[in-house]
Amino acid sequence: MSTAILKASPIHFGPFPVTTQVFHLTRYSYALVNLKPILPGHVLISPRRVVPRVADLTPTETSDLFLTVRRVARMVERVYGASSLNIAIQDGVDAGQSVPHVHAHVIPRRARDLEARGGVDAVYELLEGEEGDLNRILEGRVEKGEEGEGENGERRRKFPKVDDEDRHPRSLEEMEAEARFLMGEMAKEKEE
Amino acid sequence: MSTAILKASPIHFGPFPVTTQVFHLTRYSYALVNLKPILPGHVLISPRRVVPRVADLTPTETSDLFLTVRRVARMVERVYGASSLNIAIQDGVDAGQSVPHVHAHVIPRRARDLEARGGVDAVYELLEGEEGDLNRILEGRVEKGEEGEGENGERRRKFPKVDDEDRHPRSLEEMEAEARFLMGEMAKEKEE
Repeated sequence: MSTAILKASPIHFGPFPVTTQVFHLTRYSYALVNLKPILPGHVLISPRRVVPRVADLTPTETSDLFLTVRRVARMVERVYGASSLNIAIQDGVDAGQSVPHVHAHVIPRRARDLEARGGVDAVYELLEGEEGDLNRILEGRVEKGEEGEGENGERRRKFPKVDDEDRHPRSLEEMEAEARFLMGEMAKEKEE
Repeated sequence: MSTAILKASPIHFGPFPVTTQVFHLTRYSYALVNLKPILPGHVLISPRRVVPRVADLTPTETSDLFLTVRRVARMVERVYGASSLNIAIQDGVDAGQSVPHVHAHVIPRRARDLEARGGVDAVYELLEGEEGDLNRILEGRVEKGEEGEGENGERRRKFPKVDDEDRHPRSLEEMEAEARFLMGEMAKEKEE
């Protein structure tokens, strides 16, 4: 996959352009590095078509999305030295979805990796925080004039519980560097 | 799908026989009602082949599993009057997996459904508790002599945080009645 291909078909995550943060592209799906990863290697997999719900996907898109989840998950588990993975989809607002575009979280896990932050299941509370942050920060970017429409901040208050002080949104440069690195690592994976 | 078909090919969830709790069967996957659902309609989707990790699935099994997740999710959202869904896989011990057999949790969600139990993200803490309970209770059944080998209880202490007093393991009769009901509801779903 070349940068030229990506430039020819810009990728959106909901209303937000994310082309340079994409590290893997299939006919129907893409994989994206994260603004505020919960743990190293925490990435997102989305369908290229911007639809809010899993039920909106065609069977072909559904198969492709989860085959992509499986391949990307295997890669991040290897690259980040993990032993397990959390795979989670918040499918709809009442399940905690922030950006209205289907996205599967893939989070590499290691033994005791969240011991200091609340234990093995703290990943989910952090995930809720990350969903809120993602939306807030992406909206902040919109407010600075990239595209889309701003929000009045109401939506931010939906995820009040988590504010992990160790986590800061990463710079675009940092995300792009990781995307280039992971693109190379995907190329090492076997096809199936 | 007839009971006769199921009897001809008994279904296992990890080491545990669960044939009568299965409500949907495809060539590679099945859907199972839950011992201790977090919310009404909380069900599990597994590959028929007993493998612990998503990476162990073939591409065909992976596609089939998630097409089944999508169809079953659409059905439970309709039947239980929900508006959203949580879809989650604990893929490996260090991600909180209890039974070493791939299983996707599908949990129908409604607005403010967990307000009294901790809010929208309480679903995940409950999920961890449920994984622990599932394992403990299934192991308890094993200890009563059904099959497999007993455990000394060490594994139970892995999920100490959640003990939702409102939730009790359901009887086999109750689970089988729900499985029959959901089997009928699946028959009303369109193929795709």
